[in-house]
Amino acid sequence: MGKILAFSLIFSNIFIGLAVAADWSILNPRFRNELGDSLKKYCESWRINVEVNNIRDFQVVPQECVQHIQKYMTSSQYKADSEKALEEVKLFLSGFCNLKGDGKDAWIFDVDDTLLSTIPYYKKHGFGGQKRNTTSLESWMRKSKAPALTHTLDIFNEIKDKGLKIFLISSRKETLRSHTVDNLIDVGYHGWSGLSLRGLEDELLEVQEYKSAVRQRLVDEGYRIWGIVGDQWSSLGGHPSAKRTFKLPNSIYYLA
Amino acid sequence: MGKILAFSLIFSNIFIGLAVAADWSILNPRFRNELGDSLKKYCESWRINVEVNNIRDFQVVPQECVQHIQKYMTSSQYKADSEKALEEVKLFLSGFCNLKGDGKDAWIFDVDDTLLSTIPYYKKHGFGGQKRNTTSLESWMRKSKAPALTHTLDIFNEIKDKGLKIFLISSRKETLRSHTVDNLIDVGYHGWSGLSLRGLEDELLEVQEYKSAVRQRLVDEGYRIWGIVGDQWSSLGGHPSAKRTFKLPNSIYYLA
Repeated sequence: MGKILAFSLIFSNIFIGLAVAADWSILNPRFRNELGDSLKKYCESWRINVEVNNIRDFQVVPQECVQHIQKYMTSSQYKADSEKALEEVKLFLSGFCNLKGDGKDAWIFDVDDTLLSTIPYYKKHGFGGQKRNTTSLESWMRKSKAPALTHTLDIFNEIKDKGLKIFLISSRKETLRSHTVDNLIDVGYHGWSGLSLRGLEDELLEVQEYKSAVRQRLVDEGYRIWGIVGDQWSSLGGHPSAKRTFKLPNSIYYLA
Repeated sequence: MGKILAFSLIFSNIFIGLAVAADWSILNPRFRNELGDSLKKYCESWRINVEVNNIRDFQVVPQECVQHIQKYMTSSQYKADSEKALEEVKLFLSGFCNLKGDGKDAWIFDVDDTLLSTIPYYKKHGFGGQKRNTTSLESWMRKSKAPALTHTLDIFNEIKDKGLKIFLISSRKETLRSHTVDNLIDVGYHGWSGLSLRGLEDELLEVQEYKSAVRQRLVDEGYRIWGIVGDQWSSLGGHPSAKRTFKLPNSIYYLA
């Protein structure tokens, strides 16, 4: 039994080695399919465990899964998953929010990959398979050309129309303020009540600490935070939180 | 534009109506494939949004998705996803735990669909598509025949071998204690330090409140809770929590 196990372990390692290193086209089609299925399963498990916050602090997408992640993040499934999350926001708003209408009802959004998509950048920069290059990413952000995630734009407007105050809390640097505002307005977002970016002192904090501190200030000012929409768990966790939080999919990068 | 939208909405509703109600085999194969793809995408979005805790408080799996959920929950992907989650537990244990070894290092597990699988029951009872029938489920639990989730058993033993005290916190009723203990021991679990089940007074609480209260008692007794493994967000949320929490997949039912 032990021998069989050892043998199949060696065998499956050879398989994975081949999958990563070799030119797939030289393989027997049946082997190629088996390899493909097993790699797909592995990468799908990686992705789902990122989504539920079991896998944390990754610096790059595992090399063998970059293609899988790119495929998902540019697929109609990614779009459908985001839309379903935002439908749940709508459901929550319609059924559960007893808004006071005193100007203190608040809602929070992330910016990147929540309001704006960074996918056009990552498409040209290894799709998560390369270590985050802040200089290059920020120079892209300065172009203010990130497209809107259109379904988030819809829900943004709906929340605003309900009379809630919208606060954007982003881990982008304060120095990117004008480019960020230009970008947001250009693709259709307007009428938010606050946009928090990270000043020099905030950069010493982890993202979750920084975002929680901003929410604490809002709560201290008397705001009731009904919801948060974000693509990173660090936008949703920590105290104070919100009545409800909503996680959008993103398995390209991790912000702690 | 509005007319096109209205038309395509009607059209897609006819499609979904057909998908749910009709005998698929009478449809043109191309239509059948398109319907299948669109339903699969919809159900996958439903599932993933349950997993990340965007969809809450559902009483049944949507009828049109029961087959999809059953397929996933009995698939090698479900197994791979669970295994990946437990690999992350292993990684956390090896790299981050500065255990004191004073008998106060603790770890918490859920019981159903974490240590034991209820899938054999749901296979015979509509796979989440029927409203939870407590009488029938508990009568199945009394048979003590739930199989172990073997990868959780491995990690259970590994955690125990590291000298952590293991506490099981379950929303099963106190009246099921002996059947639960028999079942757990029978499939290989032993050596836990506590098994909390819900007494009559706990049944008035929501699951998350009840589980948090048990953890509070542990913390009051001086335990440091390093981790929680569970398949429901209500096992992981609330205060006090743990250094890390790990979510196993389960989209058959929801415990608030």
